[in-house]
Amino acid sequence: MTKFKVLLFLLLAFFQAKAEDGYDLWLRYKPVDNVSLKAEYVQALKAYSAATDKSPTIQVAVDELSIAIKGLLGVELKSADQVGEQTLVLGTSASSPYIASLKLQKSLDPLGDEGYMITTKKGNVIIAANTDIGVLYGTFHFLRLLQTQQSIKKLNITSTPNVKLRVLNHWDNLDRTVERGYAGFSLWDWHRLPGYIDPRYIDYARANASIGINGTVLTNVNANALVLTPAYLEKVKVLANVFRPYGLKVYLTARFSAPIEIGGLKTADPLNTEVQQWWKDKADEIYNMIPDFGGFLVKANSEGQPGPQNYGRTHADGANMMAAALKPHGGVVMWRAFVYSNEEPDDRAKQAYNDFKPLDGKFDDNVLVQVKNGAIDFQPREPFHPLFGAMPKTPMMMEFQITQEYLGQGTHLAYLSPMYKECLDADTYAKGKGSTVAKVVDGSLNNHRLTGIAGVSNIGTERNWTGHLFGQSNWYAFGRLAWSHGLSSEEIAKEWIRMTFSNQEDVINPITNIMMASHEAVVSYMTPFGLHHIMGWGHHYGPGPWIANKHRADWTSVYYHKADKNGIGFDRTASGSNAVAQYFPEVASKFGSLEECPEKFLLWFHHVPWTYKMKSGKELWNAMCYEYQHGVEEVENMQQKWQSLENEIDAGRFEQVKSFLKIQKKEAEWWRDACLLYFQTFSGKPIPEDIPKASQTLEYYEGLTFPFAPGN
Amino acid sequence: MTKFKVLLFLLLAFFQAKAEDGYDLWLRYKPVDNVSLKAEYVQALKAYSAATDKSPTIQVAVDELSIAIKGLLGVELKSADQVGEQTLVLGTSASSPYIASLKLQKSLDPLGDEGYMITTKKGNVIIAANTDIGVLYGTFHFLRLLQTQQSIKKLNITSTPNVKLRVLNHWDNLDRTVERGYAGFSLWDWHRLPGYIDPRYIDYARANASIGINGTVLTNVNANALVLTPAYLEKVKVLANVFRPYGLKVYLTARFSAPIEIGGLKTADPLNTEVQQWWKDKADEIYNMIPDFGGFLVKANSEGQPGPQNYGRTHADGANMMAAALKPHGGVVMWRAFVYSNEEPDDRAKQAYNDFKPLDGKFDDNVLVQVKNGAIDFQPREPFHPLFGAMPKTPMMMEFQITQEYLGQGTHLAYLSPMYKECLDADTYAKGKGSTVAKVVDGSLNNHRLTGIAGVSNIGTERNWTGHLFGQSNWYAFGRLAWSHGLSSEEIAKEWIRMTFSNQEDVINPITNIMMASHEAVVSYMTPFGLHHIMGWGHHYGPGPWIANKHRADWTSVYYHKADKNGIGFDRTASGSNAVAQYFPEVASKFGSLEECPEKFLLWFHHVPWTYKMKSGKELWNAMCYEYQHGVEEVENMQQKWQSLENEIDAGRFEQVKSFLKIQKKEAEWWRDACLLYFQTFSGKPIPEDIPKASQTLEYYEGLTFPFAPGN
Repeated sequence: MTKFKVLLFLLLAFFQAKAEDGYDLWLRYKPVDNVSLKAEYVQALKAYSAATDKSPTIQVAVDELSIAIKGLLGVELKSADQVGEQTLVLGTSASSPYIASLKLQKSLDPLGDEGYMITTKKGNVIIAANTDIGVLYGTFHFLRLLQTQQSIKKLNITSTPNVKLRVLNHWDNLDRTVERGYAGFSLWDWHRLPGYIDPRYIDYARANASIGINGTVLTNVNANALVLTPAYLEKVKVLANVFRPYGLKVYLTARFSAPIEIGGLKTADPLNTEVQQWWKDKADEIYNMIPDFGGFLVKANSEGQPGPQNYGRTHADGANMMAAALKPHGGVVMWRAFVYSNEEPDDRAKQAYNDFKPLDGKFDDNVLVQVKNGAIDFQPREPFHPLFGAMPKTPMMMEFQITQEYLGQGTHLAYLSPMYKECLDADTYAKGKGSTVAKVVDGSLNNHRLTGIAGVSNIGTERNWTGHLFGQSNWYAFGRLAWSHGLSSEEIAKEWIRMTFSNQEDVINPITNIMMASHEAVVSYMTPFGLHHIMGWGHHYGPGPWIANKHRADWTSVYYHKADKNGIGFDRTASGSNAVAQYFPEVASKFGSLEECPEKFLLWFHHVPWTYKMKSGKELWNAMCYEYQHGVEEVENMQQKWQSLENEIDAGRFEQVKSFLKIQKKEAEWWRDACLLYFQTFSGKPIPEDIPKASQTLEYYEGLTFPFAPGN
Repeated sequence: MTKFKVLLFLLLAFFQAKAEDGYDLWLRYKPVDNVSLKAEYVQALKAYSAATDKSPTIQVAVDELSIAIKGLLGVELKSADQVGEQTLVLGTSASSPYIASLKLQKSLDPLGDEGYMITTKKGNVIIAANTDIGVLYGTFHFLRLLQTQQSIKKLNITSTPNVKLRVLNHWDNLDRTVERGYAGFSLWDWHRLPGYIDPRYIDYARANASIGINGTVLTNVNANALVLTPAYLEKVKVLANVFRPYGLKVYLTARFSAPIEIGGLKTADPLNTEVQQWWKDKADEIYNMIPDFGGFLVKANSEGQPGPQNYGRTHADGANMMAAALKPHGGVVMWRAFVYSNEEPDDRAKQAYNDFKPLDGKFDDNVLVQVKNGAIDFQPREPFHPLFGAMPKTPMMMEFQITQEYLGQGTHLAYLSPMYKECLDADTYAKGKGSTVAKVVDGSLNNHRLTGIAGVSNIGTERNWTGHLFGQSNWYAFGRLAWSHGLSSEEIAKEWIRMTFSNQEDVINPITNIMMASHEAVVSYMTPFGLHHIMGWGHHYGPGPWIANKHRADWTSVYYHKADKNGIGFDRTASGSNAVAQYFPEVASKFGSLEECPEKFLLWFHHVPWTYKMKSGKELWNAMCYEYQHGVEEVENMQQKWQSLENEIDAGRFEQVKSFLKIQKKEAEWWRDACLLYFQTFSGKPIPEDIPKASQTLEYYEGLTFPFAPGN
């Protein structure tokens, strides 16, 4: 067996290096194995027609088509001398005389700057849009049809994005470490820019364009002002040039104190005219180099970052100052609502609302307020943030986390689309029933045209981009939902699986099952019933419910779970912090009622006795024990399902996921054992006999340290 | 074996399809394009014969042969039922009855534990050795013959290594940063070990085995004691298991104060019995997990690292304490002579000699003293270290730098074999003429059987391993010279070029020219005529001859170049620091004489007037100006030669090298302009008219800062 393992390892090494290693993401373009569909595709795609004088974006679309058709169908896609039948025509009415001749403009008008249509006309497939980038998006959609083996006989598709700014946030530092990054280090090789363009930048842009992401914030929200100096802007410019054909705009994080740190001023007071002029000059300098620069993302007065409150000014004063500098150039400010006051609040969950709600109506029209999905911090499960719906005059930009800071980091399989959807589909009741978070974010509830959604990236230097292969599905799902939040998580999963693994049902189904159950599994073995923020201190790796006595209470675990002899949970009803009152009445009364509150949020809003009878009939303590155990069992199920695919999936990707599932299983048990032993010191009740005994003592778990856990 | 075939098939299918990105190093196994040679090879390699009960190492050899033969010749290498003609037979007399029947033992005996023979017997190619690892080394040698298109008709090769320990030193930290690393981050994914084995670990081991490297120190010499804790040793064990079949032993750096930091002791005094016991227990613990653990590399009492001198003990006391702990298990201590006292010396170059020479004869027999090639610190050019030859009773281990800390870091093409050879071939005169450094290191001068050579690795997470593609040639050359220091730099370069690029003369010749001129070019545009240590402060990126007033003088540039109105250079003759006296008389008198001292070392040993007449007839100032300019022109030549290969080399690798050469050109000009403007403030003389004017002022160059330069 040893020999065979060695042999296997060697081959695996080659296989990973040479064959499938995840680098190609969902753009693998492997041969279509369905014979009749392949024939249909080949028949329909004899040639293509695009403008002869191609813009860089149209050139990119044609290149992608050529590579894809060669891979999928094994044929060269030729340029048509003229449009006959079975020609793929792509372009705008302006660039393609043939498309102009089809007189589609009435149908094209509503598609705006980024939408597209894919339609069959006179035996030809037409990909048409009002802009080149619309054509590129349509091209990727068309290729997705082939990759997922859909018929292309009678196409009649139109698509427009729900949200205008669909942006990745990279928490990447200038030294290439990535805050909360678990996929290696930053893609941006700042030191060798501007002289060296890593080809990976192009594949990054391709991947984003393929799912409609149109912006990237290159730098960490915990910002370094140096990125705004000329030497770094030269580097940013090169990235912007590389990304431009793919419709991907570059944004930077702006450190509020930059005028002091790199500008030589004595203050960063937003009402100081020198400061205002400094930002205006800086914006002019940037746009002179990068005419389509997107704008600034700002974290101010939070976790030690400087901000307008340092000068007795409001967040609106700070945001508007930057907005005024960017406005002449068409740039925007994305101002984060994730704030921490210097004082310890009675309830951390209430702070963003308290700070921002009074400012509604005070922000300039090129400012978005960027709000995390929940009021604490990217927990495995949070109720939606009460700011959604609470600031009708202000564009509210959603901030999701794609990287898995609190969700198993680099090795846990957790498909996050259900988590995103749970938030987007939540009803704020801001304007009565049906006022979903999605309608707040897409601007339809309050008629905002400037809308946005951000995802904190899980991308790094690892060969497969996201460290865990299934991290790719979260990047993918984020992009797809940002474009079209009505898609279901299962639809998105199946698209991704078809493109990433196989179009065979016996592969699609088990992987869909794995993915759809995965997020709930993590919640169960980490933070069931609304528990939150009980991870290891600082790095957030592994369980740390015992974390206490840190320099601020709201960075400890005991602050959040409030376990005692009587029970567990944070009373956020009127008898406690009354955070529920930040929601609209219908929501507040539901969350505030012990009986009506969904059990998944129970301990988020209520301090509940250990003996409380759950809907299952079990007492809370026992229910919690079984829920932790259930999480572990769900990982075992995922392992079994994955194992069944051994002969269906290439060895390189199969083995890596298998290794990670094994780690996940071990860590799920660690979470279960550490949390139950710890909470047992309060409940004083036995852990049910049919739950496996912890392999170590509570003291052992409490003593574990991870000084080099990544992402910290 | 079905799985083997399936994997192999898939592997090879992808092998040709994917673009070249440098990942495959010199093990590309591209098809042999010489028709007659290919026929010869196919004819000779009908089948192979190896032991049926294969050891992991023999299995690895057979796997490598199979992959290589398939790639090179497009045929499957079959296992022979019995040895007929045209069979490749590999093994030892013990494992192969056929080899035993050839009665080769008399020829095999002198080959020792690692040597091998490759010989033609009765129409068969025989790869025979005394050990399995010898067979693996022989296999890689045989494959190199095919890769470089040598005839294999009548083989009669024997080979044994000159040096016993051929070791890479990774200055890798536990957070994955790499001190002086310019190829991304550390290969060792500590956080996901032991659960996840990155297949790259195997390819790393393969590459090392292919050039005879038999040891790897995983951690930085600026050590963290945590790597000696059980949690990390579990991770180290997994790496050792992966590397073992490839003959690659694992070593760790041992932090001298570990007994305090992780052992809970109050002291790390090497004469304290508790401390001694702690190290014995630690060694027992390690060997219990890793039976073939190599031993410790130690940096003590240098640049702030703790050491025996903290307790009034000597380096020998410290080394011997660890040696005693390792000795029962067969481990060694590699004790570095690169020391910095806390006091500022009159001449930094003299310190290692002063500290270590008196200790000769005091070290236990499993200690090697590891000495950098020169007495300062991996400068572009240094005279050989005076310790070589000065400690006849002690094994002197060579420490070369493969990573290019002072040699252009991540973007300059500098083939370092000529630099290694210059040192190895230098004559110490320790026992009269012909007492070369190589003879000191290989033990032949003083009859040492324990011998070693270390290279500070340039390997990281970048796709092509070394960041710069030509960095691979330095890894390769280090391994080849460690095995066989008699090889010429040009031979090694040509081998590498044939395997890395092509066997066509019109590719080999220009690349050989580029490589052979490259190190001298760097010396010319950075530190001509023996200048040294004038790089940017801390990160050592770019020129910094103006560095002064730091907290210790011997970390400044002015300390080393000593430029003033009268001249430039460090007087190390009897009228100065008299460092020359550390050399044996023949060398001391040559270096100490202004007339006899080679001009390449002139300013290393002498303070020379600006008007001094050089051998060229030019005055020193003018000669220096033209030498800097010559360096720039050499880079231009390299650019032109590389450009001529555009159609001969795949686009991916061609373009990357081209980009880096462009950066190198720009930086060579930066070095020239900054250094000449700065030194001109002392010489007061004009820069010759025919040298291009600096594009910026001296103040500009002095004001440049690089807070995020990598490797720092």
